[in-house]
Amino acid sequence: MPGEFDLIRRYFDSISGNHPSVQLGIGDDCALLSTSPNTELAISVDTLVEGIHFLPDIDPEHLAWRLIASSVSDLAAMGASAKWLTLACTLNEPSHEWLAAFSKGLTEACHAYSLMLIGGDTTSGKHPVFTAQVHGEVPVGMALKRSSAKVGDAIIVSGTLGDSRAGLALLTAELEGNSEYLLGRYYRPTARLALGEGLRGVANAAVDISDGLLADLGHVLTASDVGAEVHVENLPLSTAIKEIAPEFAEHWALTGGEDFELCFTLPQARVFELQHISERLATPLTVVGEITQQQGIRLLRSGQPVSLPTSLGFNHFGNEHE
Amino acid sequence: MPGEFDLIRRYFDSISGNHPSVQLGIGDDCALLSTSPNTELAISVDTLVEGIHFLPDIDPEHLAWRLIASSVSDLAAMGASAKWLTLACTLNEPSHEWLAAFSKGLTEACHAYSLMLIGGDTTSGKHPVFTAQVHGEVPVGMALKRSSAKVGDAIIVSGTLGDSRAGLALLTAELEGNSEYLLGRYYRPTARLALGEGLRGVANAAVDISDGLLADLGHVLTASDVGAEVHVENLPLSTAIKEIAPEFAEHWALTGGEDFELCFTLPQARVFELQHISERLATPLTVVGEITQQQGIRLLRSGQPVSLPTSLGFNHFGNEHE
Repeated sequence: MPGEFDLIRRYFDSISGNHPSVQLGIGDDCALLSTSPNTELAISVDTLVEGIHFLPDIDPEHLAWRLIASSVSDLAAMGASAKWLTLACTLNEPSHEWLAAFSKGLTEACHAYSLMLIGGDTTSGKHPVFTAQVHGEVPVGMALKRSSAKVGDAIIVSGTLGDSRAGLALLTAELEGNSEYLLGRYYRPTARLALGEGLRGVANAAVDISDGLLADLGHVLTASDVGAEVHVENLPLSTAIKEIAPEFAEHWALTGGEDFELCFTLPQARVFELQHISERLATPLTVVGEITQQQGIRLLRSGQPVSLPTSLGFNHFGNEHE
Repeated sequence: MPGEFDLIRRYFDSISGNHPSVQLGIGDDCALLSTSPNTELAISVDTLVEGIHFLPDIDPEHLAWRLIASSVSDLAAMGASAKWLTLACTLNEPSHEWLAAFSKGLTEACHAYSLMLIGGDTTSGKHPVFTAQVHGEVPVGMALKRSSAKVGDAIIVSGTLGDSRAGLALLTAELEGNSEYLLGRYYRPTARLALGEGLRGVANAAVDISDGLLADLGHVLTASDVGAEVHVENLPLSTAIKEIAPEFAEHWALTGGEDFELCFTLPQARVFELQHISERLATPLTVVGEITQQQGIRLLRSGQPVSLPTSLGFNHFGNEHE
């Protein structure tokens, strides 16, 4: 793409940062970073493809925000800080208006998470694709892994579930009604970075809910070689989803993706610590189940087994996996 | 893409490595890495788009090799080691054969550069796009920057120039003839990693030649606020390019991209050290010019000015920039 350097400089320089950890940012063969002693480097890569992960007419500000929040959410799920961002954009002759709006969303999201843009690549292609890679740090040995859930652990989720899925349903007219709150949860999800850091040394295992609670909890169970019981009446639901989609709320709380809340486990003896963490971070935390020796996930309502939804995962635009 | 995890595991596990620096590789929310003390982290991102950077019918082994070599080349140009790779692939329903061949090329290239695949994202999309991010380390303060060329420095290039461009010309039948050597230089370029490390503390400035000598040297000159004289009769040309494309050889040596040789500067008083480095690394090194106070690039033949080619940069598939 001719003018690639100009394009990057013009729009992204404002978020390149001027932080002592960045020895060299955009403009040389590599970025050069100073990492902190006694930490491990946490890295996550996420790609959003037009037509698969976002609609072609999405507001570029929202697109940028979702790209960053979904990436940062992986750092949160490890208990890592957010530090550096690289961004690979394949663009199909974007207008200056589009780039300016995308850059505005990117700048806001980077500020929100103290993330510095330190490099990237801008290419031209018929089909827009965005790959964000985020880098954070976590004290040695303190990362929250998926593989450390223990039998007997309580299972906790942050915030409310299913909202992003409901927002998408409003957007695609799958659902009637209007809710700025639900649309906002879809467009500008919040990565739970402070919560992740607060769970270091507290939680045994953690994952972020990008594919839906059942699917992502399933990753923890597989990695930890355990099972779980989930009490559906305990699922945290927003007032908005209960009003607008009462018949879908529970299902979407279980299978709706892209909430970017955290799901984590900790010993029952430490459940009492949750209230303090929740208050300090102004983040609702809800115990929804417990880790069991028996493999798989069992859903319970008032202690009685209920069927799992036939579709367990989340596919974008409401097409759920079989 | 359903089965994303399976796909990654099946093909890429063999190169995920089992290195003490990798605390956690593919399979959690983030990879976790232990960085080395007293080093800076060097990071570079490169995207290849089908139809722009490679032909749709390219052998997937070659594609993987070029993707890795072009990325590692940026580490070489900083004097950094190569350590970790992430790979974001947007694929259009690839066959198992395609994936197996791509994985084979990837494995070979990663072995060649001691690069460990530690994470990535696999998405589905109509238009294949590949983003590789490479991570290396360089001792604090020893990185080779573009901005440190000094007036009076000698300008040196490694290997021979224009070969990759000639290989592409053979491939697209722009040029008649056959040369396994030139095709190989296009398909499987060699990143000069050992040379980059050997130039730490020796070279003042360095860049890798991805867009052509004039364009990339131009980046060094701009960043260092200096100019250059280049002696065209000193340009290192391979026997193959002189035989097959005598009328284009010099032009392609100046403007042909994707050779992934290094161009660097060092004080004239240290030019004598090049012979030892060249012999130790079995890498030809040729002085092609010197850094001047006067801005811009002046081409000289036997001391007399000659015109710059009208097209200074390299565009993929032989369409050169104006």
